[in-house]
Formats: sequence, C-alpha cells, structure tokens
Amino acid sequence: MEQLARNAKTASRELAMLSTVDKNACLRAMAEAIRSHASEIQAANALDVDAAKATGLSGAMIDRLKLDEKRISGMAKGLEEVAALPNPVGRLLDDRTRPNGLRLQKVSTPIGVVVIIYESRPNVTADAASLCFKSGNATILRGGKEAMHSNQIIARVMVEAGKQTLARFPQHAIQVVATPDREAIRELLSLTQLVDLCMPRGGEGLIRAVSECSKVPVIKHYKGVCHVYVDSGADLKMASEIVMNAKTQRPAVRNAMETLLVDRKVATKFLPEIGQRLVTKSVEIRADPAGLDILHSALNSDSAKLKPVADQDYFTEYNDYVLNVRVVDGLGPAIEHINHYGSAHSDSIVTSDESAARRFLNEVDSATVYWNASTRFTDGGEFGMGAEIGISTDKIGARGPMGLEELTSYKWIGLGNGQVRT
Amino acid sequence: MEQLARNAKTASRELAMLSTVDKNACLRAMAEAIRSHASEIQAANALDVDAAKATGLSGAMIDRLKLDEKRISGMAKGLEEVAALPNPVGRLLDDRTRPNGLRLQKVSTPIGVVVIIYESRPNVTADAASLCFKSGNATILRGGKEAMHSNQIIARVMVEAGKQTLARFPQHAIQVVATPDREAIRELLSLTQLVDLCMPRGGEGLIRAVSECSKVPVIKHYKGVCHVYVDSGADLKMASEIVMNAKTQRPAVRNAMETLLVDRKVATKFLPEIGQRLVTKSVEIRADPAGLDILHSALNSDSAKLKPVADQDYFTEYNDYVLNVRVVDGLGPAIEHINHYGSAHSDSIVTSDESAARRFLNEVDSATVYWNASTRFTDGGEFGMGAEIGISTDKIGARGPMGLEELTSYKWIGLGNGQVRT
Repeated sequence: MEQLARNAKTASRELAMLSTVDKNACLRAMAEAIRSHASEIQAANALDVDAAKATGLSGAMIDRLKLDEKRISGMAKGLEEVAALPNPVGRLLDDRTRPNGLRLQKVSTPIGVVVIIYESRPNVTADAASLCFKSGNATILRGGKEAMHSNQIIARVMVEAGKQTLARFPQHAIQVVATPDREAIRELLSLTQLVDLCMPRGGEGLIRAVSECSKVPVIKHYKGVCHVYVDSGADLKMASEIVMNAKTQRPAVRNAMETLLVDRKVATKFLPEIGQRLVTKSVEIRADPAGLDILHSALNSDSAKLKPVADQDYFTEYNDYVLNVRVVDGLGPAIEHINHYGSAHSDSIVTSDESAARRFLNEVDSATVYWNASTRFTDGGEFGMGAEIGISTDKIGARGPMGLEELTSYKWIGLGNGQVRT
Repeated sequence: MEQLARNAKTASRELAMLSTVDKNACLRAMAEAIRSHASEIQAANALDVDAAKATGLSGAMIDRLKLDEKRISGMAKGLEEVAALPNPVGRLLDDRTRPNGLRLQKVSTPIGVVVIIYESRPNVTADAASLCFKSGNATILRGGKEAMHSNQIIARVMVEAGKQTLARFPQHAIQVVATPDREAIRELLSLTQLVDLCMPRGGEGLIRAVSECSKVPVIKHYKGVCHVYVDSGADLKMASEIVMNAKTQRPAVRNAMETLLVDRKVATKFLPEIGQRLVTKSVEIRADPAGLDILHSALNSDSAKLKPVADQDYFTEYNDYVLNVRVVDGLGPAIEHINHYGSAHSDSIVTSDESAARRFLNEVDSATVYWNASTRFTDGGEFGMGAEIGISTDKIGARGPMGLEELTSYKWIGLGNGQVRT
C-alpha cells in the first residue's frame, strides 16, 4: 500500500505539470480506447457477473454490476464530456497588491492524491478517474470486490491510452487497489504524508466505516434526509408538483424528500389533495396527529397507507415510497425541524412570500436550499458542473455537488521585487 | 462537555442571524469593556502569573502570560479592527442560471461551532473569539491551564458587553472550557454532530496530539520548514537581503527560513558573502559538502559556526539561529528538495528569470510561494486580511493565512419558479 501511495504521489507531481491540451488529448484517447476495447471489457465484466451469480448476489445488484454496450459507450461519452470542460487548475481566485508592492495571487491547484472507495457500479471507475485526471489529481480506486475484474480492465485501458498519447503520461496517475483486504484500506488511509483526500461513495455504513478508520480528510455525506416545506404563502398547485417530484420521481436517491412539512394555515386545503396523489403512487404516509386527522377523512378507503409517525422516523432516510408528514405552526418551527432532524443535504420551501423564503434560505443550515423548486436538483449535472464525483455535506472544503472545481485546492503566490519584512 | 457543545450549537444558529451592524456594535462594545475592566483583567492575570512563578515556569513563559496595560489596550484595538473589516458571511461566490430557469447562487455561511486550543498567551482569547464572532461562528476556547483566570475574565467581559449591547446576543457565543482535563478535550472533539471545526494553535506536539484525538476536522500546520532558493538568474544583492530577512528577522516563527538552496552556478560568488553576513548575526550554518568547501575558506576564523549538514536536518524546524545550506544543480533539484523535505508552508525563489520563477511557483507544492520576496510575509496582517486565526497547510478548506473569509463555508441557494426534475 505504501509503495502504491508513493507512486501516486510521484504521479501527482507529474500530473500537476500537464497542460490543458495534453490532459484533454489523453481523455479523448481514453474514450476511444474504451470503445475499441468494448469486447475485452465485457469479457472481464462477465467474469465478475458470473462470480456474483454464483455467490447469490441479488438481481438488482447484478444489474448494477453489468456493463452492456450502452453503459460502455456511456463511459466513453463521459470521458469526452470531461475533456470538454474547462481546466479547473490555475484559476485566479484572488489578486491583491499590498502597500509594499508585493502582489499576492490566490490560484487553484490540484489536491494531490485522492482515494475513491465505492460499491458495485464499475462505470464509477471511469467517471472518478477522469474527473481526478482532469483536475490534476492522482487517483487510487478501490471498488467493490465483486467488480474487481471490470474495474481493473477499465483503469488499464485508460492508462494504456494515456501512455500511447503522451510520452510523459504518469503511469501511476490511475491505480486500482487489487486486494479486497480491509486492512489494506486502513493502511492506505493512515498515510497522511502521501494521501491528501478520501471520498467514499456508497451507503451510510460504508461512509461511516471509512470515516472512522481514516487519518486523511474524508469528504462525505452520510444521509439524505431532505425536506419540502409548504408555506402558507405557497402556490398550492406548484407545491403539489414539487412534492410529487421530490418524493416519487426517484425515491431511492439521496436528494429525494423524506419529510413533508405543511404550514397549519394551509394544511386542511393542501393535505387531502396531495395525500390522494401520493397514495395513488403507492406512497405510504406516516403523519403526526394533526396530519392524521386531516388525512384520515380524506383518504378513507386508502387508509391502509396511512400510519402515525414516530420521532425516529423523522431522522430516517427511507430510500423508498414512504413519506413523513408533519403539520407545523409556520416558518420558524419548519426551520427548527429541518435543522434538528435533517441531514443538511437539500431542503426546499414553496412560497410566494419573499421574506419567508429569504429567512428559510438563510437559516436552514444545509448544503443546498431551494425556493420553489424540487430537492431533486442537487446533482453536478443539474448544476451545470458537467460531471460529479459526489455530494458533500461537510463544511470544510467543498459543500454540495462536487465537480472539477471542487476537486481543487489553492495556493497563494507572492510576486515581489525584493520585499523583506520589517 | 456535551452540554457546552450543545449550547454552542444553539448559539451558532442565533449568531448566523445577526446583522453586520449588530455584530460590529457588539465588537466595539467588547473593546470598550476590555478597556474599562483593565484593572480586573490585570488582577485575574496576576493570579495566573503568581501561580506560574510558584510552579517555576520560565521567565520567557511568564512574560508571554503577562497582561500589561499595553497588551490589554492591544486586545481592545484588535477587536475594533475586526469590527472595521467587511462581514465575510453572505458573500456571493457564484451565480448561475440553468436552462430550466433555476437560478443557483453559492453564498458564504458561517462554519458553525469552532473549538480553538492554544497555549500560554491570553490575548489569543480576544483575537480568536472576535474573529469567530464576526464570521458568525460560536467559539469554544481552551487555552493553557496556566492562563485560566485570564482567559475566563476576558471571555466574560466580552460576553457581558455583548449582552448589554444586544438583547438577543447569544450568551453561549463565546465559551471557555473551565477544566484542564485532557479527557474533556477528547470528548469535545468526538462530538461530530455539534462541533464543526477545531483549530489547535501551538507547537507541533500540541497539534499532533489534537489531530490524533479529534473526530472533527482539524485545521493545522505542523511545522514551518521554509526555503529560499537563490537561482543562477538572481540579483544577488536582492537575494542577500531576502535571505538575511527570512533567517534573522525573527527566527522563532513558522515562516522563517530553515534551508537556503543555492544554484551551483552562483554558489562560489554568493555563499562567501552571505556566509559572512550570517555568521556576523551569530547564525550557525550546516552545509552540504559543496557548500562546506566554499564556506570553509571564506569564513576561516569563524569556522566554529560551520558544520556539515545531516539528512535529518533538512526536515528540521530550528526556530533558532541555525541554517541549512545546500548547493543544487539548478531549479529542478531545488523544487525536488523543497517538495521532499519542506512542510508546504512558505518557500521563495530569487531570480530575474521569469520562466524559472513561473516553474517554481507552479511546481512547489506549498500553501504560499514567493518570487523575489521574503518567506516572512506569510501572515494574515501582511496579506491584508486584517487579522489572522492561524495558518493552514491543509489542502481541504483553507490554505495559508486564515482571516475572516477563511472562517466561512458556503451553501448553494436554488431559486426556482416551480422547477421539477424530469
């Protein structure tokens, strides 16, 4: 592990010197190579899929593991999209000249060596490696052990294409950890002199396990307990569309809504209608006493889908067709609820009242807050970042969707003509 | 500890709502209160000083502990300076409108709850508390146990002044940990739900101890092993002034130089002259074989001040009148030396050759890199930040001097008119 990390560190120094043109040429060649090696990639993938079937992995997991032609061409296209994005390194973030004539510039730099730990989907290998490469970072990839053959061939094809394109391509720019040994990961994440950052991508269990064993900084978001608050000043038709989208468009993702908060002033009007729409979409509703009162009479025949909510439910990310509903006495209690039970991921207010919206946007302490829009937009692609390596709910470093820019650090550059300090 | 942290969290939410005018009024009232309570502060400080003398603390340590009238008025002035700085919260960092009309703004926010752990000087209490207060962060201060009475009265005077100025001043915005118990700190730094950041200020031992026991992010710089590289293209008169300043103006600080690298092409010309100046200032020189050869004949009578350098010396922060000297074969080896032995704090190149300078500025992987200026400028005051809470050599979050802006995080704000994701 130490040799692997040391090689990555060396590669990161070489990477930092590559020009934009060089990096983009490599990425485009990698895309081409993935296309032209599609059958070899599928053959390696078949080994993983067969082994997974033999160990009795679920159908859904096997589906996530599988690389068909469409997914392989999607990976290649992803690399070309990253090539088309601006180089995030070398951006001028500040420029000031001091009274003594010393000019100070704050310039973005790569972070260095980034470890990515992820679960089954092997296309993450290409996505993560390309984003790290474009941002000048050496990457050490540790995917799920069930995708080992797939991950290794994808990385190898990319590295070979890079070497053929550029004589000084750093051969350890993209490395795959070949052992499924957990102790090896612990060792890797203890090498604070060589590894600069770790990004775990997966379920809460994976992220907690990584955070607890890591001595290097970890970018994380444990959960997505997201809220929509329907204010008394809401356009209720708009609120209904946003609530349905936030809960039912793709309930298994982090930025889907788990709890709907409704201002008491509009609850009797809004809840019966939204309750019926939700139940039609097979959403189970767990409501507080006030919500239950209103919904019971409205849903009558469908009341099997209605239950009382428990306090613990408000902390829960269901990732499923289940929704908590709570009636609140206006904006203040809504904000308190979100800051207490939420996961600081994505929360939205629906209202036509600007001052209520401003207060919500200011006081809700989440990485992304929305006014009159669905929580589902928290995503690098939707934010126009072109690609995303993850979402961060940390407060140090990046917050929210992380694209290329968020994979950079900065340095200060002082330009003098002999200034000495007195 | 948990109650203290919980109170800080509540205070941080209240702090986030204070206006710039409110915060500045509080800071000015705090400055006035420190002046008008000078005699009480001195009385409390006398208890600390007497106890320190009784335990046999060194004269230098007792001097650092002492609060005379000048230092008390310096604290008050510092608070007024922080009041005069712009509010770092609410800055618009990005503003983009997506094709679906969704407007996304990236706005700076407070970090939340910041723990500061520091050593003897009690004036850090006022500095750190005021910077955190202005940036909307609740602070938990844990100074040295020898300064306990001084730190407590300073915080109490500040909080009382805040409460008298503003009815909704959060009473737990500034708290001092009253126990010298190390286990209490470990407990505090395990409360990841309540504490957002820890900043240790002090020697390498303190910083390592804090980093190792903390589960919350720690902003740190372990060492300041800073370099000046005198290139063959240097104005040698300028180089001489910069070297003398970087080594001798204040050798005990982090941004002082520890190793001088000289291009072989100018070594025979530059080293004898700078060697004599350094020795006149009582600097001990530890040189590599090539440097020794040149310096031996030049220094003759003063050669007691000249020794061979050991590899380990290149990693050492002397904080003293000791300097390593190494002759290198040009720019590449100089950069390699710095990236290998340095601490990524502050490094400088002296040269008139722009392309050499650009390569140095790009490839030296340090938080602050200089061209033709002394390393001693790495400081919030010198950078025009007005005040500084520390220096960071981390790559995640802030890097280099940390003023008010660096005490903030950001959130994304999405402004829609009903956008839902398809």
